[in-house]
Amino acid sequence: MSKLDTSPYKGVRDFYPEDQFIQNHISGVWRKTLESFGYNEYGASILEPAELYKAKTGEEIVNEQTYTFVDRGERTVTLRPEMTPTVARMVAARRRELGFPLRWYSIPNLFRYEAPQRGRLREHWQLNVDLFGMEGVEAEVEIVNIAYRIMRNFGAADKDFIIRLNSRKLVQKIYSLFDINDDNIQKVSKLLDKKAKISEEEFAKGVREIVGENADAFIELINSPDEIFEKIGKESAEVKEIFAVSAALEALGVTNITFNQTLMRGFDYYTGVVFEVFDTHKDNPRSLFGGGRYNELLALFGDEEVAAFGFGAGDVTLKDFLETHQLLPAYSSSTHVYIATLSKEHYAEVEGVATRLRQGGVNVAVDWTGRKVGDQIKTADKQHIEFVMVVGEDEIGSGVYKIKNIRTGDELSVRLDEINDVILPKIHK
Amino acid sequence: MSKLDTSPYKGVRDFYPEDQFIQNHISGVWRKTLESFGYNEYGASILEPAELYKAKTGEEIVNEQTYTFVDRGERTVTLRPEMTPTVARMVAARRRELGFPLRWYSIPNLFRYEAPQRGRLREHWQLNVDLFGMEGVEAEVEIVNIAYRIMRNFGAADKDFIIRLNSRKLVQKIYSLFDINDDNIQKVSKLLDKKAKISEEEFAKGVREIVGENADAFIELINSPDEIFEKIGKESAEVKEIFAVSAALEALGVTNITFNQTLMRGFDYYTGVVFEVFDTHKDNPRSLFGGGRYNELLALFGDEEVAAFGFGAGDVTLKDFLETHQLLPAYSSSTHVYIATLSKEHYAEVEGVATRLRQGGVNVAVDWTGRKVGDQIKTADKQHIEFVMVVGEDEIGSGVYKIKNIRTGDELSVRLDEINDVILPKIHK
Repeated sequence: MSKLDTSPYKGVRDFYPEDQFIQNHISGVWRKTLESFGYNEYGASILEPAELYKAKTGEEIVNEQTYTFVDRGERTVTLRPEMTPTVARMVAARRRELGFPLRWYSIPNLFRYEAPQRGRLREHWQLNVDLFGMEGVEAEVEIVNIAYRIMRNFGAADKDFIIRLNSRKLVQKIYSLFDINDDNIQKVSKLLDKKAKISEEEFAKGVREIVGENADAFIELINSPDEIFEKIGKESAEVKEIFAVSAALEALGVTNITFNQTLMRGFDYYTGVVFEVFDTHKDNPRSLFGGGRYNELLALFGDEEVAAFGFGAGDVTLKDFLETHQLLPAYSSSTHVYIATLSKEHYAEVEGVATRLRQGGVNVAVDWTGRKVGDQIKTADKQHIEFVMVVGEDEIGSGVYKIKNIRTGDELSVRLDEINDVILPKIHK
Repeated sequence: MSKLDTSPYKGVRDFYPEDQFIQNHISGVWRKTLESFGYNEYGASILEPAELYKAKTGEEIVNEQTYTFVDRGERTVTLRPEMTPTVARMVAARRRELGFPLRWYSIPNLFRYEAPQRGRLREHWQLNVDLFGMEGVEAEVEIVNIAYRIMRNFGAADKDFIIRLNSRKLVQKIYSLFDINDDNIQKVSKLLDKKAKISEEEFAKGVREIVGENADAFIELINSPDEIFEKIGKESAEVKEIFAVSAALEALGVTNITFNQTLMRGFDYYTGVVFEVFDTHKDNPRSLFGGGRYNELLALFGDEEVAAFGFGAGDVTLKDFLETHQLLPAYSSSTHVYIATLSKEHYAEVEGVATRLRQGGVNVAVDWTGRKVGDQIKTADKQHIEFVMVVGEDEIGSGVYKIKNIRTGDELSVRLDEINDVILPKIHK
């Protein structure tokens, strides 16, 4: 028989313990930050009826950019490409029982069918945060504050990133000034979305195609926040909202904020304020994650609208950010102590030592391969386990055990009854 | 437009916070137990090349019982139905660098395409534990001990479950006594596997079809462990191994073990000792989980064999066990304190109180809906949040805050600077 290939499927990742350690670090910081703000974890299957996406995204995109297939019961199934439709579905299903405001988070894996490239794989994990049932700007402020605290909790400084704010309502007002109608809104929004990535000429050409003779005025306006505020009116609800959000954020100590009038954040379902966290490092100048208000999505499931504000943050772009800014922690094994053994004669006594350590909260692996002690220690070293104990007749006879830190070479001799007291402070740093 | 359906896809589950709480409890106990024995977490994608399963399982089963589809790059992809092929693939890919013995665990979600029924859904989560590179019975003993400790760590008593042991090598010896050849081995193994679930007549009929005129002798032997040990020989390697495993387990305090000569544990790749944990409750008499030795699987990827012993334990059957034995913990929200507010005038001060609590490790949600205080408290109650603080002008003016436990009705008055010291002992129980 021919040999089986050991590669994973194209565009997805294997997580060896060193990789899983980083994933756990990332989800740990996410979890801790979200729960501190009163968010509760929920979850769902990666399998969803394809209809869930077709309603808002369009059949073509679902068929071309997602994993969608027909099951043997003739149901069309999609591997979820985003979490918002799922959370909207779940909240809609129990809107009477849940109680609002509702604060939820989840860390799902998501799938998209496209050619893998830096920062974009076919499967990635994403933090999803949603606040339902709070209509005022306090929701905007809380969510953007959370995004900021997450970055700080990863060790980022204020100068490492900037938070961009915009409002779909404000953009809508600009469109109406130029009589941009429904047919052209999507086109011009897409154009604004990619403005920073294309040349001025290309942008101008696109605007001319949509706005016609008023193109120059449109371009002048879209390049000047001050003129936008002036034109829409400083006392208009749209402008006041943006100013209220940034003022409240500054009061909470979030000062690396900027207004960005071309920020759109892809999804069609956004209805108000949108934001994104942008990496300011010259080697990685890119959007890290973002979100916005989407008050109309729940109405798709019937009944009335539910105020909603949320964001999603992917693991791949975040890991790139942490690498670029040297904020990734060094790997350490979850195993604290490796016991190398000299003979199976003392099996019961050695396992007794291991059990005592485990009961005290120390994670212990025992090597029963019968190899030379040097080879057993090499395994501990290869697996990044910090402490080694060699246990043989001498140790069991005397009741005194040597614990060696194989990274530093430090060695300690301890009695069995004091072993946990000695090791615990060294491992739970 | 017609309303979207709020149901999940057939045979999978939504995890509302109360459900996710149970999932987190289960994976928390798994994680803690495994790491205490020196196992490191790894992970992988749910998408695997279909070839990975076809080698050992057969094309027909893969096509009929798994989610397998062709992607647009003409690759055949399977949603993983089990984790062992994946872990074997990953270990084989880096066998030179990893260092043995290797202790790994993972908590993947797995998929199978079948009609959903009690204890068997289309998607479930499973603890997977594997010990590579230890050939002696110390591996068997460690893994079965871990299975035992997991059950105890969930709160189960020894009488709640029993651990069944068998050896594929021993069964093989029995087959050879009756000249059962390769063609019939799978048939007779399947028959033994379901012996407990079918009538004596049906079993006898099946045996006669395979063994022919020696059927009665076979049935007599298979019904008597003592005779099996006698026939194979008490000094044979196969019998000695089983006795060594149970003796070592008893020395470690694991005494609810029994030899079960018809235990097979499905998978074809098992080569030695197999075991399962069985629920002894009269309302739920069933196998909870199990595993065994599979020394030949890694050879599929080339090179030599690697000693391997492992098991998988699913969340659905475990949850049934915990429910039956009343071992599921009561839900409590991860949010400790709910702040009800009287006016947005004090926004900055209230958020300041929340920030101070969060910095001390208290998880806090703030209600800015502007509803009546009674309605705000009702939301906290609906969401199972234990403590409520109503913060208004009086509290901010006096610097004294009331914290009420809405479950017990107990109320405390505390100054802002002592708030964390008062609340922390009450929430981290």
